[in-house]
Amino acid sequence: RVLPGVGPRSALRMATQLLVHDRVGAEYLSQSLQRALSALDQCRECQTLCEEEVCGICQSQKRDARLLCVVETPSDLLRVEQAGAFTGKYYVLMGRLSPLDGVGTQELKFAELMKRACDGVVQEVVVATNFTAEGEATAHVLDSLLTPRGLKVTRLARGVPVGGEIEFVDGLTLAQAFRERRDL
Amino acid sequence: RVLPGVGPRSALRMATQLLVHDRVGAEYLSQSLQRALSALDQCRECQTLCEEEVCGICQSQKRDARLLCVVETPSDLLRVEQAGAFTGKYYVLMGRLSPLDGVGTQELKFAELMKRACDGVVQEVVVATNFTAEGEATAHVLDSLLTPRGLKVTRLARGVPVGGEIEFVDGLTLAQAFRERRDL
Repeated sequence: RVLPGVGPRSALRMATQLLVHDRVGAEYLSQSLQRALSALDQCRECQTLCEEEVCGICQSQKRDARLLCVVETPSDLLRVEQAGAFTGKYYVLMGRLSPLDGVGTQELKFAELMKRACDGVVQEVVVATNFTAEGEATAHVLDSLLTPRGLKVTRLARGVPVGGEIEFVDGLTLAQAFRERRDL
Repeated sequence: RVLPGVGPRSALRMATQLLVHDRVGAEYLSQSLQRALSALDQCRECQTLCEEEVCGICQSQKRDARLLCVVETPSDLLRVEQAGAFTGKYYVLMGRLSPLDGVGTQELKFAELMKRACDGVVQEVVVATNFTAEGEATAHVLDSLLTPRGLKVTRLARGVPVGGEIEFVDGLTLAQAFRERRDL
Protein backbone atom coordinates (compact mmCIF):
# COMPACT_ATOMS: atom_id res chain seq x y z
CA ARG A 1 0.00 0.00 0.00
CA VAL A 2 2.99 2.33 -0.09
CA LEU A 3 2.69 2.31 -3.91
CA PRO A 4 0.87 5.28 -5.46
CA GLY A 5 -2.69 4.52 -6.56
CA VAL A 6 -2.82 1.16 -4.74
CA GLY A 7 -5.64 0.72 -2.20
CA PRO A 8 -6.20 -2.14 0.27
CA ARG A 9 -7.86 -4.48 -2.27
CA SER A 10 -5.23 -3.98 -4.98
CA ALA A 11 -2.51 -4.41 -2.38
CA LEU A 12 -3.96 -7.76 -1.27
CA ARG A 13 -4.28 -8.92 -4.88
CA MET A 14 -0.65 -7.98 -5.61
CA ALA A 15 0.59 -9.69 -2.44
CA THR A 16 -1.31 -12.89 -3.29
CA GLN A 17 0.01 -12.86 -6.86
CA LEU A 18 3.60 -12.49 -5.68
CA LEU A 19 3.54 -14.85 -2.66
CA VAL A 20 1.42 -17.62 -4.14
CA HIS A 21 1.85 -17.58 -7.91
CA ASP A 22 5.19 -15.90 -8.53
CA ARG A 23 7.68 -16.28 -5.69
CA VAL A 24 10.59 -15.90 -8.15
CA GLY A 25 9.14 -12.55 -9.26
CA ALA A 26 8.75 -11.48 -5.64
CA GLU A 27 12.39 -12.30 -4.90
CA TYR A 28 13.47 -10.41 -8.04
CA LEU A 29 11.36 -7.34 -7.15
CA SER A 30 12.72 -7.31 -3.61
CA GLN A 31 16.34 -7.46 -4.72
CA SER A 32 15.83 -4.88 -7.49
CA LEU A 33 14.35 -2.46 -4.97
CA GLN A 34 17.23 -3.08 -2.58
CA ARG A 35 19.78 -2.45 -5.34
CA ALA A 36 17.96 0.71 -6.46
CA LEU A 37 17.75 1.96 -2.86
CA SER A 38 21.49 1.63 -2.35
CA ALA A 39 22.64 2.65 -5.85
CA LEU A 40 20.26 5.45 -6.87
CA ASP A 41 20.08 8.89 -5.35
CA GLN A 42 19.12 12.35 -6.51
CA CYS A 43 21.58 14.37 -8.58
CA ARG A 44 23.05 17.19 -6.47
CA GLU A 45 22.57 19.63 -9.33
CA CYS A 46 19.28 18.81 -11.02
CA GLN A 47 17.55 16.48 -8.51
CA THR A 48 16.86 13.71 -11.05
CA LEU A 49 17.50 10.08 -10.05
CA CYS A 50 21.01 8.87 -10.91
CA GLU A 51 23.77 6.53 -9.76
CA GLU A 52 26.45 9.19 -9.35
CA GLU A 53 26.51 12.24 -7.12
CA VAL A 54 26.03 14.42 -10.19
CA CYS A 55 24.16 12.99 -13.20
CA GLY A 56 25.61 12.52 -16.67
CA ILE A 57 23.78 15.48 -18.19
CA CYS A 58 24.83 17.89 -15.44
CA GLN A 59 28.43 16.70 -15.79
CA SER A 60 28.49 16.91 -19.59
CA GLN A 61 30.62 19.61 -21.20
CA LYS A 62 28.64 19.27 -24.43
CA ARG A 63 25.36 20.59 -23.00
CA ASP A 64 24.62 24.31 -23.26
CA ALA A 65 24.85 25.54 -19.64
CA ARG A 66 23.12 28.82 -20.55
CA LEU A 67 19.81 26.96 -20.98
CA LEU A 68 18.01 25.41 -18.00
CA CYS A 69 14.85 23.38 -18.59
CA VAL A 70 12.50 22.91 -15.62
CA VAL A 71 10.43 19.69 -15.70
CA GLU A 72 8.12 18.09 -13.15
CA THR A 73 9.47 14.52 -13.05
CA PRO A 74 12.38 12.33 -14.20
CA SER A 75 9.93 10.76 -16.72
CA ASP A 76 9.45 14.19 -18.30
CA LEU A 77 13.22 14.64 -18.50
CA LEU A 78 13.54 11.30 -20.30
CA ARG A 79 10.72 12.23 -22.70
CA VAL A 80 12.42 15.51 -23.65
CA GLU A 81 15.75 13.70 -24.08
CA GLN A 82 14.08 11.11 -26.34
CA ALA A 83 12.61 13.91 -28.47
CA GLY A 84 16.18 15.20 -28.87
CA ALA A 85 14.84 18.73 -28.84
CA PHE A 86 16.86 20.30 -26.07
CA THR A 87 20.62 20.83 -25.73
CA GLY A 88 20.78 22.55 -22.34
CA LYS A 89 20.65 21.25 -18.77
CA TYR A 90 17.71 20.37 -16.51
CA TYR A 91 16.16 20.95 -13.14
CA VAL A 92 13.63 18.37 -11.93
CA LEU A 93 11.02 19.72 -9.48
CA MET A 94 9.88 16.24 -8.39
CA GLY A 95 6.30 17.47 -8.44
CA ARG A 96 4.20 20.54 -9.12
CA LEU A 97 2.60 23.18 -6.92
CA SER A 98 -0.57 21.71 -5.44
CA PRO A 99 -1.73 23.59 -2.33
CA LEU A 100 -4.61 21.15 -1.73
CA ASP A 101 -2.12 18.28 -1.42
CA GLY A 102 0.19 20.36 0.73
CA VAL A 103 2.81 20.76 -2.00
CA GLY A 104 4.15 24.31 -1.92
CA THR A 105 7.33 26.13 -2.92
CA GLN A 106 9.18 24.63 0.05
CA GLU A 107 8.36 21.01 -0.83
CA LEU A 108 9.52 21.62 -4.41
CA LYS A 109 12.74 23.25 -3.17
CA PHE A 110 12.26 26.46 -5.16
CA ALA A 111 15.09 28.02 -3.14
CA GLU A 112 17.53 25.44 -4.54
CA LEU A 113 16.22 26.07 -8.05
CA MET A 114 16.71 29.84 -7.60
CA LYS A 115 20.31 29.24 -6.53
CA ARG A 116 20.85 26.92 -9.49
CA ALA A 117 19.28 29.37 -12.00
CA CYS A 118 21.12 32.39 -10.64
CA ASP A 119 24.60 30.85 -10.94
CA GLY A 120 25.60 33.54 -13.43
CA VAL A 121 25.87 31.08 -16.32
CA VAL A 122 22.18 30.31 -16.92
CA GLN A 123 20.56 32.91 -19.19
CA GLU A 124 17.25 31.32 -20.11
CA VAL A 125 14.92 29.10 -18.07
CA VAL A 126 12.59 27.01 -20.26
CA VAL A 127 9.57 26.03 -18.17
CA ALA A 128 8.39 22.61 -19.39
CA THR A 129 5.86 21.79 -16.67
CA ASN A 130 2.65 20.13 -17.87
CA PHE A 131 -0.13 22.15 -19.49
CA THR A 132 -2.53 21.18 -16.70
CA ALA A 133 -3.94 23.67 -14.17
CA GLU A 134 -1.25 22.80 -11.60
CA GLY A 135 1.57 22.78 -14.16
CA GLU A 136 0.48 26.19 -15.48
CA ALA A 137 0.26 27.64 -11.94
CA THR A 138 3.75 26.32 -11.22
CA ALA A 139 5.01 27.96 -14.42
CA HIS A 140 3.58 31.34 -13.46
CA VAL A 141 5.04 31.25 -9.96
CA LEU A 142 8.43 30.34 -11.42
CA ASP A 143 8.14 33.24 -13.86
CA SER A 144 7.32 35.69 -11.08
CA LEU A 145 10.40 34.54 -9.14
CA LEU A 146 12.92 34.26 -11.96
CA THR A 147 12.12 37.23 -14.22
CA PRO A 148 12.99 39.84 -11.52
CA ARG A 149 16.43 38.20 -11.28
CA GLY A 150 17.13 39.22 -14.88
CA LEU A 151 16.59 35.76 -16.37
CA LYS A 152 14.73 35.13 -19.63
CA VAL A 153 11.83 32.81 -18.78
CA THR A 154 10.17 30.94 -21.64
CA ARG A 155 7.36 28.38 -21.97
CA LEU A 156 6.92 25.60 -24.54
CA ALA A 157 4.65 26.57 -27.43
CA ARG A 158 0.99 25.60 -27.15
CA GLY A 159 -1.13 24.80 -30.17
CA VAL A 160 -2.01 22.20 -32.76
CA PRO A 161 0.21 19.08 -32.57
CA VAL A 162 2.40 18.04 -35.51
CA GLY A 163 0.28 16.21 -38.10
CA GLY A 164 -2.86 17.67 -36.54
CA GLU A 165 -6.00 18.10 -38.63
CA ILE A 166 -8.15 21.12 -37.82
CA GLU A 167 -11.33 19.05 -37.91
CA PHE A 168 -10.14 16.78 -35.08
CA VAL A 169 -8.40 19.26 -32.79
CA ASP A 170 -10.23 20.00 -29.52
CA GLY A 171 -11.88 23.42 -29.20
CA LEU A 172 -9.70 24.83 -26.42
CA THR A 173 -6.50 23.96 -28.28
CA LEU A 174 -7.89 25.47 -31.50
CA ALA A 175 -8.84 28.70 -29.69
CA GLN A 176 -5.34 28.83 -28.19
CA ALA A 177 -3.76 28.23 -31.60
CA PHE A 178 -5.74 31.17 -33.04
CA ARG A 179 -4.76 33.47 -30.17
CA GLU A 180 -1.08 32.56 -30.43
CA ARG A 181 -0.90 32.45 -34.24
CA ARG A 182 2.41 33.60 -35.67
CA ASP A 183 3.80 35.12 -38.86
CA LEU A 184 4.43 32.65 -41.64
CA ARG B 1 -19.30 3.76 -55.63
CA VAL B 2 -19.39 7.50 -56.21
CA LEU B 3 -18.90 7.95 -52.43
CA PRO B 4 -15.33 8.62 -51.27
CA GLY B 5 -13.59 5.59 -49.74
CA VAL B 6 -16.24 3.13 -50.95
CA GLY B 7 -15.03 0.23 -53.11
CA PRO B 8 -17.11 -2.36 -55.05
CA ARG B 9 -17.65 -4.64 -52.00
CA SER B 10 -18.70 -1.85 -49.64
CA ALA B 11 -20.97 -0.45 -52.34
CA LEU B 12 -22.72 -3.80 -52.74
CA ARG B 13 -23.12 -4.14 -48.96
CA MET B 14 -24.61 -0.65 -48.72
CA ALA B 15 -26.99 -1.29 -51.64
CA THR B 16 -28.18 -4.57 -50.09
CA GLN B 17 -28.71 -2.92 -46.70
CA LEU B 18 -30.79 -0.11 -48.21
CA LEU B 19 -32.80 -2.11 -50.75
CA VAL B 20 -33.49 -5.22 -48.65
CA HIS B 21 -33.40 -4.19 -45.00
CA ASP B 22 -34.17 -0.47 -44.94
CA ARG B 23 -36.26 0.72 -47.86
CA VAL B 24 -37.58 3.64 -45.77
CA GLY B 25 -34.01 4.76 -45.11
CA ALA B 26 -33.25 4.47 -48.84
CA GLU B 27 -36.23 6.67 -49.72
CA TYR B 28 -35.19 9.20 -47.04
CA LEU B 29 -31.58 9.30 -48.27
CA SER B 30 -32.69 9.75 -51.86
CA GLN B 31 -35.00 12.65 -51.04
CA SER B 32 -32.46 14.32 -48.73
CA LEU B 33 -29.87 14.20 -51.49
CA GLN B 34 -32.35 15.65 -53.98
CA ARG B 35 -33.24 18.47 -51.59
CA ALA B 36 -29.59 19.21 -50.87
CA LEU B 37 -28.77 19.20 -54.60
CA SER B 38 -31.41 21.81 -55.33
CA ALA B 39 -31.06 23.91 -52.16
CA LEU B 40 -27.31 23.98 -51.43
CA ASP B 41 -24.68 25.72 -53.48
CA GLN B 42 -21.31 27.30 -52.83
CA CYS B 43 -21.15 30.78 -51.29
CA ARG B 44 -20.06 33.31 -53.91
CA GLU B 45 -17.63 34.90 -51.45
CA CYS B 46 -16.07 32.11 -49.40
CA GLN B 47 -16.99 28.94 -51.39
CA THR B 48 -18.49 27.11 -48.41
CA LEU B 49 -21.77 25.22 -48.87
CA CYS B 50 -24.85 27.29 -48.07
CA GLU B 51 -28.48 27.83 -49.04
CA GLU B 52 -28.16 31.48 -50.08
CA GLU B 53 -26.01 33.03 -52.77
CA VAL B 54 -23.79 34.50 -50.03
CA CYS B 55 -23.47 32.64 -46.71
CA GLY B 56 -24.49 34.05 -43.31
CA ILE B 57 -20.92 34.66 -42.15
CA CYS B 58 -19.94 36.53 -45.32
CA GLN B 59 -23.11 38.65 -45.06
CA SER B 60 -22.68 39.41 -41.35
CA GLN B 61 -21.79 42.97 -40.36
CA LYS B 62 -20.56 41.72 -36.98
CA ARG B 63 -17.59 39.78 -38.34
CA ASP B 64 -14.22 41.53 -38.61
CA ALA B 65 -13.70 41.92 -42.39
CA ARG B 66 -10.00 42.71 -41.88
CA LEU B 67 -9.32 39.07 -40.92
CA LEU B 68 -9.62 36.28 -43.49
CA CYS B 69 -9.17 32.67 -42.35
CA VAL B 70 -8.29 30.10 -45.03
CA VAL B 71 -9.46 26.54 -44.29
CA GLU B 72 -9.45 23.35 -46.37
CA THR B 73 -13.06 22.20 -46.03
CA PRO B 74 -16.51 23.29 -44.77
CA SER B 75 -16.00 20.82 -41.85
CA ASP B 76 -12.92 22.79 -40.80
CA LEU B 77 -14.92 26.03 -40.95
CA LEU B 78 -17.58 24.51 -38.68
CA ARG B 79 -14.90 23.26 -36.26
CA VAL B 80 -13.36 26.74 -35.96
CA GLU B 81 -16.82 28.28 -35.48
CA GLN B 82 -17.61 25.75 -32.73
CA ALA B 83 -14.35 26.66 -30.97
CA GLY B 84 -15.56 30.28 -31.03
CA ALA B 85 -11.99 31.39 -31.53
CA PHE B 86 -12.26 33.50 -34.65
CA THR B 87 -14.22 36.67 -35.34
CA GLY B 88 -13.24 37.33 -38.96
CA LYS B 89 -14.43 35.88 -42.26
CA TYR B 90 -13.46 32.71 -44.12
CA TYR B 91 -12.30 31.36 -47.44
CA VAL B 92 -12.78 27.61 -48.03
CA LEU B 93 -10.28 26.05 -50.45
CA MET B 94 -12.34 22.86 -50.90
CA GLY B 95 -9.12 20.84 -50.76
CA ARG B 96 -5.37 21.19 -50.44
CA LEU B 97 -2.50 21.25 -52.91
CA SER B 98 -1.76 17.67 -53.90
CA PRO B 99 0.18 17.45 -57.17
CA LEU B 100 0.07 13.62 -57.18
CA ASP B 101 -3.75 13.74 -57.23
CA GLY B 102 -3.75 16.47 -59.85
CA VAL B 103 -4.88 19.17 -57.40
CA GLY B 104 -2.97 22.36 -58.15
CA THR B 105 -3.47 26.09 -57.67
CA GLN B 106 -6.05 26.14 -60.49
CA GLU B 107 -8.26 23.42 -58.99
CA LEU B 108 -8.24 25.26 -55.63
CA LYS B 109 -9.11 28.56 -57.36
CA PHE B 110 -6.17 30.45 -55.86
CA ALA B 111 -6.91 33.28 -58.30
CA GLU B 112 -10.33 33.82 -56.68
CA LEU B 113 -8.74 33.73 -53.25
CA MET B 114 -6.17 36.34 -54.32
CA LYS B 115 -8.96 38.59 -55.55
CA ARG B 116 -10.87 38.07 -52.29
CA ALA B 117 -7.81 38.74 -50.08
CA CYS B 118 -6.73 41.81 -52.04
CA ASP B 119 -10.08 43.61 -51.76
CA GLY B 120 -8.42 46.41 -49.82
CA VAL B 121 -10.28 45.57 -46.60
CA VAL B 122 -8.51 42.34 -45.61
CA GLN B 123 -5.30 43.02 -43.67
CA GLU B 124 -4.40 39.62 -42.27
CA VAL B 125 -4.81 36.15 -43.76
CA VAL B 126 -4.81 33.41 -41.10
CA VAL B 127 -3.84 30.14 -42.79
CA ALA B 128 -5.64 27.31 -40.96
CA THR B 129 -4.89 24.44 -43.33
CA ASN B 130 -4.07 21.11 -41.66
CA PHE B 131 -0.64 20.45 -40.18
CA THR B 132 -0.10 17.58 -42.59
CA ALA B 133 2.53 17.60 -45.37
CA GLU B 134 -0.02 18.77 -47.96
CA GLY B 135 -1.61 21.32 -45.65
CA GLU B 136 1.80 22.78 -44.79
CA ALA B 137 2.80 22.95 -48.47
CA THR B 138 -0.48 24.73 -49.25
CA ALA B 139 0.24 27.21 -46.43
CA HIS B 140 3.69 28.01 -47.80
CA VAL B 141 2.44 28.56 -51.36
CA LEU B 142 -0.29 30.86 -50.02
CA ASP B 143 2.32 32.78 -48.03
CA SER B 144 4.53 33.21 -51.10
CA LEU B 145 1.57 34.59 -53.07
CA LEU B 146 -0.03 36.81 -50.42
CA THR B 147 2.94 38.36 -48.61
CA PRO B 148 4.22 40.21 -51.73
CA ARG B 149 0.77 41.83 -51.97
CA GLY B 150 1.40 43.56 -48.64
CA LEU B 151 -0.83 41.25 -46.58
CA LYS B 152 0.11 39.94 -43.15
CA VAL B 153 0.06 36.14 -43.41
CA THR B 154 -0.14 34.14 -40.17
CA ARG B 155 -0.34 30.45 -39.23
CA LEU B 156 -2.02 28.81 -36.25
CA ALA B 157 0.37 28.08 -33.39
CA ARG B 158 1.88 24.60 -33.23
CA GLY B 159 2.80 22.92 -29.97
CA VAL B 160 1.53 21.03 -26.96
CA PRO B 161 -2.29 20.83 -26.83
CA VAL B 162 -4.25 22.35 -23.93
CA GLY B 163 -4.14 19.96 -20.94
CA GLY B 164 -1.15 18.16 -22.49
CA GLU B 165 1.31 16.33 -20.24
CA ILE B 166 4.94 16.38 -21.35
CA GLU B 167 5.34 12.66 -20.70
CA PHE B 168 2.63 11.75 -23.21
CA VAL B 169 3.26 14.28 -25.98
CA ASP B 170 4.75 12.82 -29.18
CA GLY B 171 8.41 13.57 -29.89
CA LEU B 172 7.91 15.69 -33.02
CA THR B 173 5.39 17.96 -31.29
CA LEU B 174 7.66 18.29 -28.27
CA ALA B 175 10.63 19.24 -30.45
CA GLN B 176 8.43 21.80 -32.22
CA ALA B 177 7.22 23.19 -28.89
CA PHE B 178 10.84 23.68 -27.78
CA ARG B 179 11.81 25.39 -31.05
CA GLU B 180 8.82 27.71 -30.90
CA ARG B 181 8.90 28.40 -27.16
CA ARG B 182 7.83 31.88 -26.15
CA ASP B 183 8.35 34.41 -23.36
CA LEU B 184 6.25 33.79 -20.29
